[in-house]
Amino acid sequence: MSTPEQVCANGNGVEHVELLLPATNDDHGGIVVEMEEAMDSEVFVTLLRASISEWRRQGKKGVWIKLPIDLVSLVEPTVKEGFWYHHAEPNYLMLVYWIPKTICTIPANASHRAVIGAIVLNDKRELLVVQEKSGKFKGTGVWKIPTGVVDEGENVCEAARREVKEETGIDTEFLEVLAVRQLHKALFEKSDILFICMMSPLSLDIQKQELEIEAAQWMPFGEYAAQPFVQKHELFKYITYLCLTKLHGDYRGFSPLPITSAFNDSLSYLYLNSRDLNNFSIPSDEF
Amino acid sequence: MSTPEQVCANGNGVEHVELLLPATNDDHGGIVVEMEEAMDSEVFVTLLRASISEWRRQGKKGVWIKLPIDLVSLVEPTVKEGFWYHHAEPNYLMLVYWIPKTICTIPANASHRAVIGAIVLNDKRELLVVQEKSGKFKGTGVWKIPTGVVDEGENVCEAARREVKEETGIDTEFLEVLAVRQLHKALFEKSDILFICMMSPLSLDIQKQELEIEAAQWMPFGEYAAQPFVQKHELFKYITYLCLTKLHGDYRGFSPLPITSAFNDSLSYLYLNSRDLNNFSIPSDEF
Repeated sequence: MSTPEQVCANGNGVEHVELLLPATNDDHGGIVVEMEEAMDSEVFVTLLRASISEWRRQGKKGVWIKLPIDLVSLVEPTVKEGFWYHHAEPNYLMLVYWIPKTICTIPANASHRAVIGAIVLNDKRELLVVQEKSGKFKGTGVWKIPTGVVDEGENVCEAARREVKEETGIDTEFLEVLAVRQLHKALFEKSDILFICMMSPLSLDIQKQELEIEAAQWMPFGEYAAQPFVQKHELFKYITYLCLTKLHGDYRGFSPLPITSAFNDSLSYLYLNSRDLNNFSIPSDEF
Repeated sequence: MSTPEQVCANGNGVEHVELLLPATNDDHGGIVVEMEEAMDSEVFVTLLRASISEWRRQGKKGVWIKLPIDLVSLVEPTVKEGFWYHHAEPNYLMLVYWIPKTICTIPANASHRAVIGAIVLNDKRELLVVQEKSGKFKGTGVWKIPTGVVDEGENVCEAARREVKEETGIDTEFLEVLAVRQLHKALFEKSDILFICMMSPLSLDIQKQELEIEAAQWMPFGEYAAQPFVQKHELFKYITYLCLTKLHGDYRGFSPLPITSAFNDSLSYLYLNSRDLNNFSIPSDEF
């Protein structure tokens, strides 16, 4: 895609052929340029100026330029042409520009991490807990439930199973999301959405991970709940309440339901209170 | 913070003063450099090399360098020293490097946007619906519930109220999250976490937004549900079921509960099934 394209930039009788950057249209009247091969900075700037001029004539709005990290030499020239950063991943930087004089409606960058906390209780009412080697809990002696970050493209329910397996070696079945917590400024300016997940253990033999986990054990629930840290902090108290209500009461969280996307047929999960939904017959006259 | 610091880089009797980049420690044995003022590239590279060498001696792990967009000239030299991109926002780029020979445990970038969809039903069982001027629904004639992206640092329940107000002029009270849907590749490689929110209208007079909204109205619920698009696609069907169960049945979603963070006293929201939790008295012998 990264070789310049020849287009007719002028339709008024005189054929006017100009080199532009290779680009595709997006769903919002914008343009996406994915640079793939190295290009001399001066050539790039010349093409970029001609392209912007042509896209302006066409009434295009947002312009996205994706630069792989090995094309880092094009970052400075792109910014000098008025682009700004949109987002970055380890191997590329995405820059954007807004052509019209109207308000810029380029969507914001991803602002959240999805994070899981896994409640795994065995038949003896022991809770699967760990002590971590780094982070805020390092050296505190606090026993906590396994937690971890959902990978890009990973489903929450699968992330919960993966993290428990990685940290403790325990296989689990995902049951429900018991609660969701949104926390701001969790990693620099980004927020975390924590899914507190109820899991059922499918194995009991703990094999702790060396890299991040100091210790792991099945701990009697009362002993976990009696930790001063757990008693002192609201989130941890609520995790305790949720466990207890799940053990003795009738708490229903959200269970995962696979659904197909309206636009690209991809599978995704809808988490909802399936008991309440299933207990209800939809009146036929409502449709 | 961006003037070089003099430190004693050597503690073995011979004072050895060296210029390093200004840095602070993080909670994970790492280093954070926030560049603020312009610096010559060559001076920067000299300081960076000396700093990495010193931090290696100190046993530091991850190194974060935050470069404001007006210091874009330092991006290429930083990458050439072995750094890669971590994340970017409109006005800065964050680069990272991992000093030890062990597995890199630098946390992943934010991978999700939080998005809301707002179900607002009035006393006449009419649903607040809109048609959008751009995006996938443009020109389809589909009437849909108001949706929008949660801003960085914004609470989900507040985002739902803001989006409904912006798009339709209607004031609302936030009631519950009825369901949560995780969708991958929603914006480039990033995923969306959609909170389907039940809201109660506090006003009825629609003032539609010009920029993004083609039309807005209160629509009889049956008419909304009968749209072919709604009947055809699973997510939209489930939104209909959730509405109907809420109207006629006994569906309980997650309601927001303000809690204080364990680490920085900031307020955050925990969304949980408060009815089920409140119906249960915790046995005192569990603690």
